[in-house]
Amino acid sequence: MRLAVVPGDGIGPEVVGEALKVLDEVAPSVETTQYDLGAARWHSTGELLPESVLSELREHDAILLGAVGDPSVPSGILERGLLLRLRFELDHHVNLRPARLYPGVRGPLSAAQEIDLVVVREGTEGPYAGTGGLLRKDTPQEIATEVSINTAFGVERVVRDAFTRASLRPRRKLTLVHKTNVLTHAGSLWSRVVEEVSLEHPDVAVDYQHVDATTIHMVTDPGRYDVIVTDNLFGDILTDLAAAVTGGIGIAASGNLDVSRANPSMFEPVHGSAPDISGKGIADPTAAILSVALLLDHLGEPELARRVEAAVAFDLATRDHTNPGGTHAVGDRLAALVSS
Amino acid sequence: MRLAVVPGDGIGPEVVGEALKVLDEVAPSVETTQYDLGAARWHSTGELLPESVLSELREHDAILLGAVGDPSVPSGILERGLLLRLRFELDHHVNLRPARLYPGVRGPLSAAQEIDLVVVREGTEGPYAGTGGLLRKDTPQEIATEVSINTAFGVERVVRDAFTRASLRPRRKLTLVHKTNVLTHAGSLWSRVVEEVSLEHPDVAVDYQHVDATTIHMVTDPGRYDVIVTDNLFGDILTDLAAAVTGGIGIAASGNLDVSRANPSMFEPVHGSAPDISGKGIADPTAAILSVALLLDHLGEPELARRVEAAVAFDLATRDHTNPGGTHAVGDRLAALVSS
Ligand SMILES: CC(C)[C@H](C(=O)O)[C@@H](O)C(=O)O
Ligand SMILES: CC(C)[C@H](C(=O)O)[C@@H](O)C(=O)O
Repeated sequence: MRLAVVPGDGIGPEVVGEALKVLDEVAPSVETTQYDLGAARWHSTGELLPESVLSELREHDAILLGAVGDPSVPSGILERGLLLRLRFELDHHVNLRPARLYPGVRGPLSAAQEIDLVVVREGTEGPYAGTGGLLRKDTPQEIATEVSINTAFGVERVVRDAFTRASLRPRRKLTLVHKTNVLTHAGSLWSRVVEEVSLEHPDVAVDYQHVDATTIHMVTDPGRYDVIVTDNLFGDILTDLAAAVTGGIGIAASGNLDVSRANPSMFEPVHGSAPDISGKGIADPTAAILSVALLLDHLGEPELARRVEAAVAFDLATRDHTNPGGTHAVGDRLAALVSS
Repeated sequence: MRLAVVPGDGIGPEVVGEALKVLDEVAPSVETTQYDLGAARWHSTGELLPESVLSELREHDAILLGAVGDPSVPSGILERGLLLRLRFELDHHVNLRPARLYPGVRGPLSAAQEIDLVVVREGTEGPYAGTGGLLRKDTPQEIATEVSINTAFGVERVVRDAFTRASLRPRRKLTLVHKTNVLTHAGSLWSRVVEEVSLEHPDVAVDYQHVDATTIHMVTDPGRYDVIVTDNLFGDILTDLAAAVTGGIGIAASGNLDVSRANPSMFEPVHGSAPDISGKGIADPTAAILSVALLLDHLGEPELARRVEAAVAFDLATRDHTNPGGTHAVGDRLAALVSS
């Protein structure tokens, strides 16, 4: 197995270091190659994602990414030019984001809840398409547009994936989240596709919720959700909220999947580069380590994946949450746990 | 003062009835005219908002609206054809949505928090513009688009309003919420406008946050927010979340303001028509009643507005939240309180 590693910016390299430590314990035969994409490379060469690097990345079985983004780079440059470019070029149409409240973790909600949901976020179109522009910039008549592009092709493949995942989970529930009462065109397409694909999955219970209402239920009754399928932007928003109610983005993992396997999938913590704490050795590497579990699952190593998850579950249940230890300490504990 | 009343659908008429009871106590001279817009009218006549009714509405000083939406009507018909049409035709560019955690109210968060924020949501453009469409409908090549339209004119007037409001509040803080790292065109316009207008308000501290990050802080540290300014869609999402963390949409009020006063402004609870509980007499009319306070403020009656708010604050501090009483009981209590 050949893994490309993109540590990226801020705390990215710190958490990726620990994730690789854990990976090396469970799967020592994995070969890794590091790629120095990110703010530093952009500053020194102006490059974001050279074609040659993209071709090399394509030759790998998977990618592990730390984080992308730096205050020294204008907003959008690294995000659109590197992170989203990777997701789009490598056709990562299923952005998989589980959110689980682990025993021992105290989320911000007062009501005791069992939370175990997964958001299947579309990853290659919608409001993230990047189509739009500025007309009459810097005049009083300026107009800025953003175009959300939703295709039957793109919606169907992610909805299909979400149904399959739902049918394999104990509760077999799927919730479409959108804003069909306002975004009537995109909403109509998403609703029709969900209705059609649901005919192939009579075992899956389907419901629909407006995105604004979902934010309410996510804080009053998050236990109700099983699988949520939604577009790129709503998925971005809801997965940060779901991460928050399950104890924070320090433990939220994600996979950017090309489920057709034509391209390598990419695994990354949901959190960003967190420049405010970078270099201090205090970032929690748990999200990056749980992303390794998703990676192992995707590569057909479910037993190894379960071992990583079990180690994380044990550590979260037993760690002193007021003083979890620094980045290295958490990584060392988890590396020891997976090899024991 | 001439008030147009649109009770609308579901629990709309129930909560509006109580709101008018309270209004009648504090401002008995207000003349009201009821308009039967909503699902029933659409079913019987096919009409949503006839031009003649729109002209009549324009002749009023303000509008009080209950709720719009019914499961018997396809999604979007009433919302786009009636509610959003009112907001757009009457140029309600400032959608004002305060969220306050009242003493006595227990929100879903475990950490004790003082929450007192106001979201200034743009109300007449952005992703709500309604521009977009379906191409090759019902074929595998179908494409659905939604276009977010942001104008310097539209962004500037709502940002200006938000700065003015921030400068009049004790903390004088304004947070722009957007997704500038992905929606770079619209994000660029919003950022530049906030930067420009901030020069006129050196007393207001300005910061920026991505919308996904805002959902995290809204559940971990909502007390940090003072005034939030944002676009139509992000504002829709964040105000439901803000309502949830301050005790629920049963008490969240809103004003759709044309701050130029060329058109009547419209006041409505943030909640919807709640068909599941309509007709049962159990809907909480507090949000509609607090919307009356916003209405009185807008019409230059701040003392009356404070009286309504004080009554609500007293009732929320003393009511039995497990058994607050039915719709009428809450309305009766608040009507008695404002007149005492
Ligand atoms: C950094 C940003 C472009 C990204 C996104 O919006 O997808 C991030 O928020 C995420 O959720 O992975
Ligand atoms: C009913 C719907 C069109 C409306 C909106 O999206 O603005 C509602 O959610 C609101 O927040 O007032």
